[in-house]
Amino acid sequence: MGGSERWERLWTGVGLATMTDPSLGTIPDGAIATRGDRIAWVGRADALPANQEQLADEVHRCEGVWLTPGLIDCHTHIVFGGDRAGDFRRRLRGESYAEIARSGGGIASTVRATRAATTEELVADAARRAADLSAWGVTTLEIKSGYGLELESELRMLEAAARVADHLPLDVAPTLLAAHALPPEYVGRRDEYLRLVIDEIIPEAARQRLATAVDVFCEEIAFSAPEAVRILQAGAAAGLHGRIHADQLSDCGGGQVAASVGARSADHLEFLAEEGVRAMAAGEVCAVLLPGAAYTLGADRRPPVAALRKSGVRIAVASDANPGSSPITHFGAILNMACILFGLTPEEALLGATTHAARVLALDDRGTLQVGMRADFALWRVKELTELCYWVGSSPLASLVKDGRPVRSVRQSDAP
Amino acid sequence: MGGSERWERLWTGVGLATMTDPSLGTIPDGAIATRGDRIAWVGRADALPANQEQLADEVHRCEGVWLTPGLIDCHTHIVFGGDRAGDFRRRLRGESYAEIARSGGGIASTVRATRAATTEELVADAARRAADLSAWGVTTLEIKSGYGLELESELRMLEAAARVADHLPLDVAPTLLAAHALPPEYVGRRDEYLRLVIDEIIPEAARQRLATAVDVFCEEIAFSAPEAVRILQAGAAAGLHGRIHADQLSDCGGGQVAASVGARSADHLEFLAEEGVRAMAAGEVCAVLLPGAAYTLGADRRPPVAALRKSGVRIAVASDANPGSSPITHFGAILNMACILFGLTPEEALLGATTHAARVLALDDRGTLQVGMRADFALWRVKELTELCYWVGSSPLASLVKDGRPVRSVRQSDAP
Repeated sequence: MGGSERWERLWTGVGLATMTDPSLGTIPDGAIATRGDRIAWVGRADALPANQEQLADEVHRCEGVWLTPGLIDCHTHIVFGGDRAGDFRRRLRGESYAEIARSGGGIASTVRATRAATTEELVADAARRAADLSAWGVTTLEIKSGYGLELESELRMLEAAARVADHLPLDVAPTLLAAHALPPEYVGRRDEYLRLVIDEIIPEAARQRLATAVDVFCEEIAFSAPEAVRILQAGAAAGLHGRIHADQLSDCGGGQVAASVGARSADHLEFLAEEGVRAMAAGEVCAVLLPGAAYTLGADRRPPVAALRKSGVRIAVASDANPGSSPITHFGAILNMACILFGLTPEEALLGATTHAARVLALDDRGTLQVGMRADFALWRVKELTELCYWVGSSPLASLVKDGRPVRSVRQSDAP
Repeated sequence: MGGSERWERLWTGVGLATMTDPSLGTIPDGAIATRGDRIAWVGRADALPANQEQLADEVHRCEGVWLTPGLIDCHTHIVFGGDRAGDFRRRLRGESYAEIARSGGGIASTVRATRAATTEELVADAARRAADLSAWGVTTLEIKSGYGLELESELRMLEAAARVADHLPLDVAPTLLAAHALPPEYVGRRDEYLRLVIDEIIPEAARQRLATAVDVFCEEIAFSAPEAVRILQAGAAAGLHGRIHADQLSDCGGGQVAASVGARSADHLEFLAEEGVRAMAAGEVCAVLLPGAAYTLGADRRPPVAALRKSGVRIAVASDANPGSSPITHFGAILNMACILFGLTPEEALLGATTHAARVLALDDRGTLQVGMRADFALWRVKELTELCYWVGSSPLASLVKDGRPVRSVRQSDAP
């Protein structure tokens, strides 16, 4: 209850998914009120005070609408130059990754294009991609660097990431991923690049407050587990949360690395072993599942969802939107893939894109509908929330509320 | 060349994909003109007559746009009542198909909901789904019956299908699929239902011109190969083109059935054997690949794409949009799946959604950009056409032309 103060806005006639329990904490006939950028009241409509109409400056009477927390995409790489459509075509014509990489394709081409792009170009392209996610109810968006791989370009990517929020009703959580790949010019000088990341890029990104987390790609083709530990410890020393791309293509002990340095999450996890699951559970590390990458890469392996469930690891779901291994900004397709490819229930997928994703990002003011939480809502024109995971088509988003304000009504296809 | 007559409309500065050869018959700097509902001129911009500006009533000067024939989705089931979101949730919670079917789920629930729906409801729901496809450049759409499974309901589904075209800039090709499943009330009386389909439903649908093709689901759980032959022969006798759901879950000899009755296409084909490929090639039967169903059902098997290619079978790609096994109306996701899951090249996927799909539907006035063909165009804001298959997000459609007329500009997400 909000006491005697007035409410700024009140929504009635909505189904609520508060995301406060494994069944989504649903309240089929609910009401929710805001004051400023916060939730002031939430509950069953029939528990509203009798004089509810007088208690709010603005009343939205809804029908046939479900209201959830704004969705949170906690793992994306949407700031980049160029694209990889050419690689995509070549791969489907039968060229191998190695052939494509040798002739200048792959991540190296994205690094070149990103370094060459102006900040304005990076912002404009990323904002177009973020607009797709916004149309699917995303109000908080993590964006990683990692295609600059040098001090200036990495910081510029983080600046571009932050500026995406100037164009859309969403908050950006920027993550420094300077340890995404060894830059071409450092081949044969691994440790020099690691020292650059640890001694210069991480401290500078932290000092300029351009990132809230540091991430590392821990894999045979990228950085080893001991190297990942060094990167994440340097991040922690600079006050940044830890993230890790772990056990995607092989079991590198990434789950254990994450636990050992107190990282918020380990992401991908197709090859996570039982020992890694145990370490993550003990260390309260979240699992971030990225079905778009498993799908695009044609991966045979699936993350050990049953073991993660059983051990109580919190599971988040994210788009991994990036030009190479997950060129997907349709968040409904990602939710669907989480169910179809990884066997999550719709409830798990939706918790994974709200409260668990908030935990990954260490944002404790969002992800559930509770008094005092940030008033970021997505209103959906669906009969039941399963539909968000079930049908892959146009977005069923009816409208969006950011910081307590209805920010826009995303248009659907022009149905009759 | 169009001689001395005036052109109604002329587009310049467009890349053209004429779809007249395996490389899409591209003309990077092209121009295309219409008179009435037909293409009057098409070619390189520098081959336009010098007085081009005077030759057209309306000139569209474009930049950075590719123009293709309007896409053709040649296999959908978008007319139906209810949905199967509940089944989807139950399956992900671990219930088997058999359990779900026993408790009233599965196709039987869609048949009940479809019979109970008014025609207006069927049209409105189908038009919403078709709007998603239209937003992805689809200007010709096949829609099947098959959830009525009785004379009145099957004809009503076909009427509803036809009426979708009243709401959107597209043509509907209606297909009678009364032989989709044995209706519950005919269990133990198979042959009675077959006689109903053959003696009453097919002739009546043909007499009322409600369908241009007849289709049958040939599978252990549906109709046998000899039954399928009877259905398709009855269709042919009534003047309807033949289609067949073939070899999706097992090798039923569906490819051979299609060839033996001169069907236009055999669809699905995950279990198509070498003999079926040979029969289809000899009989000029098109293969319709439906990656959305393979994806949703988690199928291990893939259609024999290499063998189909090698033997020269024309390959089409379609959404199979339906409430159970392919709840997908995002045509970009379908093109992407055709590449990622089935290994088609982007060129094959795009030919499969244009000229080959037209052949499946026996519509020889569309699917390519050639003088005399119907002026149905999709204009795309992409740098190269591979992008249509590569990125799964909002539709890159810039605008649509149906029967020579710009019909609407589909709005993209509100990018800055």
